[in-house]
Amino acid sequence: VLTGVATLLAVDWGTSSLRAALLDDLGSAQLERSYPRGLTSVPSGGFDAVFHECFADWFDEADQRCLVAGMAGARSAWQEVPYCPCPTSVDELAAGLSWIRPGRIAIVPGACCESRGVPDVMRGEETQVLGALDLLGLRDATLVLPGTHSKWVSARDGRIVQFSTHMTGEMFALLRHHSLLARGLPASAEGFDDGFDTQAFDDGVAQALRGGGLLHNAFSIRTLALFDRKPGAALLSRLSGLVIGEELLARPRDAADGVILIGASGLTARYARALAQCGVASHCVGAQAGWRGLHVLAQRARWAGRPGR
Amino acid sequence: VLTGVATLLAVDWGTSSLRAALLDDLGSAQLERSYPRGLTSVPSGGFDAVFHECFADWFDEADQRCLVAGMAGARSAWQEVPYCPCPTSVDELAAGLSWIRPGRIAIVPGACCESRGVPDVMRGEETQVLGALDLLGLRDATLVLPGTHSKWVSARDGRIVQFSTHMTGEMFALLRHHSLLARGLPASAEGFDDGFDTQAFDDGVAQALRGGGLLHNAFSIRTLALFDRKPGAALLSRLSGLVIGEELLARPRDAADGVILIGASGLTARYARALAQCGVASHCVGAQAGWRGLHVLAQRARWAGRPGR
Repeated sequence: VLTGVATLLAVDWGTSSLRAALLDDLGSAQLERSYPRGLTSVPSGGFDAVFHECFADWFDEADQRCLVAGMAGARSAWQEVPYCPCPTSVDELAAGLSWIRPGRIAIVPGACCESRGVPDVMRGEETQVLGALDLLGLRDATLVLPGTHSKWVSARDGRIVQFSTHMTGEMFALLRHHSLLARGLPASAEGFDDGFDTQAFDDGVAQALRGGGLLHNAFSIRTLALFDRKPGAALLSRLSGLVIGEELLARPRDAADGVILIGASGLTARYARALAQCGVASHCVGAQAGWRGLHVLAQRARWAGRPGR
Repeated sequence: VLTGVATLLAVDWGTSSLRAALLDDLGSAQLERSYPRGLTSVPSGGFDAVFHECFADWFDEADQRCLVAGMAGARSAWQEVPYCPCPTSVDELAAGLSWIRPGRIAIVPGACCESRGVPDVMRGEETQVLGALDLLGLRDATLVLPGTHSKWVSARDGRIVQFSTHMTGEMFALLRHHSLLARGLPASAEGFDDGFDTQAFDDGVAQALRGGGLLHNAFSIRTLALFDRKPGAALLSRLSGLVIGEELLARPRDAADGVILIGASGLTARYARALAQCGVASHCVGAQAGWRGLHVLAQRARWAGRPGR
């Protein structure tokens, strides 16, 4: 039952899941929902229908407002929203909101940057980064958002100035399920946290940090299985350490001052462990970063019946 | 038609193909055959049957001898043959031959080595390396055998002293067919050499050599497609350059003196290009390296009806 204090329907429409929260006027989540209705499960042109199917009871109030972050603004998704080029901040992202219904529902733009002629992109993480900075009262930080495509973000003076994507989670899944290594690893598709072996994970991180390269180091998962040196569960933890350690090898110099980790606790805990092995301190922030980012953007948006672009 | 000069049936039984040659007493291939009957296509216990099916007409001479290199000696293959630990040479490999039929058919052992508690293995490449050294009259060299699992081998004083495996070919296939990157790449399963774009390949090598890591650099294939900066065929060549460049980053210091590339010409040509970008000279040797290796081993084997182990 809603109490009437909800001022924003905050939505994170990701690739595999659709999450939402009703935020009060301080930006705190009063109610939360999650559906397995990510981008890949929505038929072409079906975003409006899925939105109303999931949120009709939360949205049919006369004064309800809604901001959507994530992949909803991707090409062929709900409505393509151009990326905001870095450096970018709350001002540019709020100005770049793309209205689905003027004054009621808008999609937050993603961010893009460029390094040596190669572009990089994010959709959703920009909102979490701005929320985490706001939550922690920081204007300068190195932030890491682990996941299928991990993001390393440099924020200076409250702006996202540069970032880089690492296909770490996807690489773990590719090696675990589709490569030769799969033969020596537990068959279950689940079990990411079940039977996690911290020593094996740390060994994997250490091996990656010594160099040699992922192409070589990953093969050790095969040979250790071949010589029966380690059980499958330990090898899975070691492989996780190998790919995360490989990502950490490419960390920016600024990371030495400590990083903010944003994400689910199981994964950020692994990154915190691996970063500690590099001598890098970290601080973890959970899902509230995304809600806070949408709250901050909502305060800057032009809701008064005045359509944006 | 055989002329009677054939003294050895040389077989390379790999994971995906079965190749053979009849060698004369100087080790030259007189006739060659190739079948799509690699390890993965042979049913358990079916190696003897496949061998006779493919080579009965070549093998039924009273004095015919046969040496088999490759995966035939793997666990669950024709007959498991223990690895020869490095350093190893023609002497140890010949002494370690595993007889399928005493004095007639033997399998060459693979080689193993260890680095910081992590084992590495090869089956088949050891024979090619010894053959290439013999062909070139070398006793010291750094040799590279590109492929699904590339091998970098250090030979000193005619012995294989150390080597390392890199999952380069497998990684290319994983990223090309099973990752998010597949969306921006040509759909055809073929076309490795068709439409090869040397500039895009060189750009990929250069990007890898600048660092940043494969987990990050591979994502650029996605973003370049997203911004329509490059056509799919160019991106495929660039991805090839990225993974080969990543392998080269881990090259041993000795490689600076030049390397011997062993393998099919299309792939060794790519490696030669990438190595040139690192300032490393290379010399290519083809399939004759494997036949020569088996010839050299056959000269050292104990054929006189005297069974080995």
